[in-house]
Amino acid sequence: MPASVQPGTGQLLIDQSFSVAVTGTHDASLNTGVRRFQAQLSTQTGIPFRPKPGAPPTLQIHADHAREAVQKLGEDESYELTITDSGAKLTALTPLGVLHGLETFLQLVQPSGSGFSVPAVTIKDQPRFPWRGLLIDASRHFIPIDVLKRNLDAMTAVKMNVLHWHLSDDQGFRVESKVFPKLQGMGSGGQFYTQAEVRDLIAYAHDRGIRVIPEFDIPGHATAWYVGYPELASGPGQYSSERRGGIFDAIMDPTQERTYKFLDQFIAEMAKLFPDAYFHIGGDEVNGKQWDANPKIQQFMKAHNLKNNQDLQAYFNQRVQKIVAKNHKTMVGWDEILHPDLPKTIIVQSWRGQQSLADAAKQGYSGLLSHGYYLDLMWSAARHYAVDPMGDAAATLTDQEKSRILGGESCQWAEWITPENVDSHIWPRNAAIAERLWSPQSVTDVASMYTRLNAVSLDLEWLGLTHRSARQQMLHRMAGSADITALRALADVVEPVKDYNRGDDAKGLSDFDGPLTRMVDAVYPESDTARHFGELVQTFVDGGYKDQAAEAQIRSWLTMWRDNDAKLHPLLDQSALLQEDAPVSANLSALGAAGLQALDYLDKAQLAPDAWETQQLASIAQAKKPTADLLLMIVAPVQQLVQASAIPR
Amino acid sequence: MPASVQPGTGQLLIDQSFSVAVTGTHDASLNTGVRRFQAQLSTQTGIPFRPKPGAPPTLQIHADHAREAVQKLGEDESYELTITDSGAKLTALTPLGVLHGLETFLQLVQPSGSGFSVPAVTIKDQPRFPWRGLLIDASRHFIPIDVLKRNLDAMTAVKMNVLHWHLSDDQGFRVESKVFPKLQGMGSGGQFYTQAEVRDLIAYAHDRGIRVIPEFDIPGHATAWYVGYPELASGPGQYSSERRGGIFDAIMDPTQERTYKFLDQFIAEMAKLFPDAYFHIGGDEVNGKQWDANPKIQQFMKAHNLKNNQDLQAYFNQRVQKIVAKNHKTMVGWDEILHPDLPKTIIVQSWRGQQSLADAAKQGYSGLLSHGYYLDLMWSAARHYAVDPMGDAAATLTDQEKSRILGGESCQWAEWITPENVDSHIWPRNAAIAERLWSPQSVTDVASMYTRLNAVSLDLEWLGLTHRSARQQMLHRMAGSADITALRALADVVEPVKDYNRGDDAKGLSDFDGPLTRMVDAVYPESDTARHFGELVQTFVDGGYKDQAAEAQIRSWLTMWRDNDAKLHPLLDQSALLQEDAPVSANLSALGAAGLQALDYLDKAQLAPDAWETQQLASIAQAKKPTADLLLMIVAPVQQLVQASAIPR
Repeated sequence: MPASVQPGTGQLLIDQSFSVAVTGTHDASLNTGVRRFQAQLSTQTGIPFRPKPGAPPTLQIHADHAREAVQKLGEDESYELTITDSGAKLTALTPLGVLHGLETFLQLVQPSGSGFSVPAVTIKDQPRFPWRGLLIDASRHFIPIDVLKRNLDAMTAVKMNVLHWHLSDDQGFRVESKVFPKLQGMGSGGQFYTQAEVRDLIAYAHDRGIRVIPEFDIPGHATAWYVGYPELASGPGQYSSERRGGIFDAIMDPTQERTYKFLDQFIAEMAKLFPDAYFHIGGDEVNGKQWDANPKIQQFMKAHNLKNNQDLQAYFNQRVQKIVAKNHKTMVGWDEILHPDLPKTIIVQSWRGQQSLADAAKQGYSGLLSHGYYLDLMWSAARHYAVDPMGDAAATLTDQEKSRILGGESCQWAEWITPENVDSHIWPRNAAIAERLWSPQSVTDVASMYTRLNAVSLDLEWLGLTHRSARQQMLHRMAGSADITALRALADVVEPVKDYNRGDDAKGLSDFDGPLTRMVDAVYPESDTARHFGELVQTFVDGGYKDQAAEAQIRSWLTMWRDNDAKLHPLLDQSALLQEDAPVSANLSALGAAGLQALDYLDKAQLAPDAWETQQLASIAQAKKPTADLLLMIVAPVQQLVQASAIPR
Repeated sequence: MPASVQPGTGQLLIDQSFSVAVTGTHDASLNTGVRRFQAQLSTQTGIPFRPKPGAPPTLQIHADHAREAVQKLGEDESYELTITDSGAKLTALTPLGVLHGLETFLQLVQPSGSGFSVPAVTIKDQPRFPWRGLLIDASRHFIPIDVLKRNLDAMTAVKMNVLHWHLSDDQGFRVESKVFPKLQGMGSGGQFYTQAEVRDLIAYAHDRGIRVIPEFDIPGHATAWYVGYPELASGPGQYSSERRGGIFDAIMDPTQERTYKFLDQFIAEMAKLFPDAYFHIGGDEVNGKQWDANPKIQQFMKAHNLKNNQDLQAYFNQRVQKIVAKNHKTMVGWDEILHPDLPKTIIVQSWRGQQSLADAAKQGYSGLLSHGYYLDLMWSAARHYAVDPMGDAAATLTDQEKSRILGGESCQWAEWITPENVDSHIWPRNAAIAERLWSPQSVTDVASMYTRLNAVSLDLEWLGLTHRSARQQMLHRMAGSADITALRALADVVEPVKDYNRGDDAKGLSDFDGPLTRMVDAVYPESDTARHFGELVQTFVDGGYKDQAAEAQIRSWLTMWRDNDAKLHPLLDQSALLQEDAPVSANLSALGAAGLQALDYLDKAQLAPDAWETQQLASIAQAKKPTADLLLMIVAPVQQLVQASAIPR
């Protein structure tokens, strides 16, 4: 949603004569951006453009001056887009603004009675926050370059401007170091990015107005480093990359000079490879066990008057910060790096809560919000959308303190992610976070957000994102050549369990070498069907059970669910991947039946018997429990109907 | 369907330990083929393989000897595949057989109660015909290399072994000539393949056991040549590439030596670029108008005793054949090149009928069948499947004559094709033709063919073919961000008009520069839904109208269709692309209502009144007419119900 939208009269038709002209500054990213825009518009409309030579351009673009060779935080991204029934004009201070304006233009294209068109409108737009990022974890599961590229395309579409590339962790070291080749040679299982690939990706991102910030998580979350270089660790022994998730004991030794000598060379190499002015050193979730157990380290702490492990980590961070600064970079780290001993120039990324972001701002540190934007927690778009970097604890900050909050980053941690399903875990929900970070604080209406989210989701398919198609393929995998209609009906109303509740079941701890091909891996994090059904039931209830159109639709859904288990059951038995979903399917059927009975009582204005209600509520309680790491999302509205049918009116 | 299948007992599980070992000959195509197979198996099952070092291989592969550096017609392609519950063995004389056997293995993989598995089986397999091709026309609409590559992947999956690349025609010259750069420079509108791309595609095809045969259609269908080289034509004036379909007057001048000098240099260049032993010179649809109108040519014909244009073309073909032969190639051409003056070494590709193929074989020419395999005619898979190269006129040939029939080629002419919808026009129907050319003549059961076709269609999605997804995207384009459920319901039961009946409507002649984004461009050439509905009605009728399960399903479909128009109508009005489909949607609704009424009469064992039947049959006749170039495919079964309801029992 742009900062300012003034509707005009009429519409501008998009036909074969569509053409673009550019005045003002021309740089490579503007030129490729315009070409990409034309190709995208042609793809979306299916119109091969053949502008008439000499005719005035349909879209006139002007950028005042060039952008920075290396994109800077806070570079101007504003634009103005004016569309009338005879033409369109896009102006911006820099090519960055043009890129954003072109995406807005694409979003405005719609089929109409006379062909494709964009409505007449005047838009003046600029971002609310200068830092609007997406973290992709490539360590837990490797994410190939082509998958990252299509996600950069999607980020462009929603005007995000930072890719935070989580490149190392306990499970894998994912970038080629020429100075320390055993990092990727022994710590990646062969799955890493070459420096050429990194440079290519950075150029690709730059063309799209996106900065790329590498994260090398130290001193914790770094087991993969020690596979090749065990001398960096605080504990003895050989190391291998972790094959499961969690917080591990292995930790870098901050008390030996060779650690800093190593980091000095390594950071110098990476600082050259990644041109962005910011450099992320992680710093989260330090479990001090190896430090506690190492007498040499304990001795060092005493000698340097370091009272606890927090002090020791702060000592380490100060040393690292000096190396980062020597390479002309600003250090970024997670909440845990916050310590009075560190200079105010560092940036704190808050994953633990909005309080810690506010605390940092009060202490003079700049910060980013990620708490509330963890896509791996499987929250709804609405829940993420409600989180505001200036909300909660930040709301009471002074203006000066507030100005230190630079924006936020959504995070796609990859414990349960493969290249196959990563798109569907990021998109479309991430577009709601992107809007939170771009649009005015006052833009908060959830219903209209979902309308835009649906449109964005469809647009992303044209960019080649697999956020919808991957589920289809994964269901086909489970079903073999059998028809998947009934399977899809089940998949449509379930969501993965939320937060960190997955994997606590009988299946035991996760194995990152194993397949991620269960129903919980295939389904969307948020069920549109369940949301629509819930809204429909609410409409029916609010209308005093008299809205016949709503009731007919509710009945049609409930009937389909009631009958679905009988259709699905043969398939559930035949596929090892589906067997665990049999109880979920049975529960769905029971919910369908319960809802229909409740409607019958309501129709007859007959009070549902207590015994029946008790029995149904017991079955609903059963259906509410996570099964096969899935949640049935129509439980609440069915419960609403059952309870309504038992209330005297 | 393999030539011989002996079912065994039990199944072989595919799990993380799956591994492959190769003995015997190792060549590049075998090694990359095995790697491709492993990646494909991993993708389809979602299992990342981590075989245990030292464990015996799950699949043992052996090829006796290497294949030819340039794949030859008739090279051995046989293989044997033995699968038991403890392992699998694939043996072949050549890597070509291994490649085919690996595809068979992939087809056998299915989900089971204990995980993914392949059934125990012994397969001995070889092709019925050595020439099993697909023609792709890249002239009428340019088809980019990546689209060709995924179609080569699909050809591999169905064991086709020839890509016939139709590279020039009236509408475009699509390959780079360095000797005559104005061919692509002026005759392609910038859309052509560089020689490097051609070589890359040929290598890609070779790796997959596919020969690539270029076609440069002469002396007709060659307007695009004359844009840069008008001196080759038989008529005066400047030329531009045609922007519509049809047969045009422009034709090469066969009476001037400079034509042969040009072709001598051009064919020499292309013969080097395309290593295959065969070279296709087209030769079809010569309209002699420019020859008739050119006095110099008429004089030449008299002087050389050439009685008619057929003789003149034969003269031309003889000259061309000598050039082709000088470059160590065998000439291939369409039926029209058949002439007693041409040597028996040429190959005749029959598009006009099976009679001309038989005639050629009788006269000692080798031949290929394409008549009956024209995918652009929008026939059903069953109709293509019924066409046998040895059927019809060929059935009466002697064994020696029969041996001259080398196989066949399906043809995807590209008048109405774009890179967006080409996959869905070729696939899955082409798999039925591929089976016709590979499997024994006795394999003709249509129902089991459709079962296999469905499985192949699903498999092709894993290869990245867009034969299903493109329709979805095209429907979304028409609908904007509106829900497409009702639109898809309509699309599910229509097919494009058959044969050459498209474009005869009010829209006038086609414009190859225009969009191909109508419903007729989006829908599948064959409606599975209509086929299933027809079968269901047949079951119901055959069962004396007593099969309640069938009736319930029929009712459910008819109800959905009856009610669909009301849901779809708002959308049809809002989108210029959909307005023409409004009458089709109305007809579908009427058919639904008529079918339901007929069922009511049948249920009540009440004879439908004559007046009602007459009225319904009139409305059915209306629905039968092509509208918006679409055919409603459920007309016949609904008519069956209506007529049944009016017959006294």
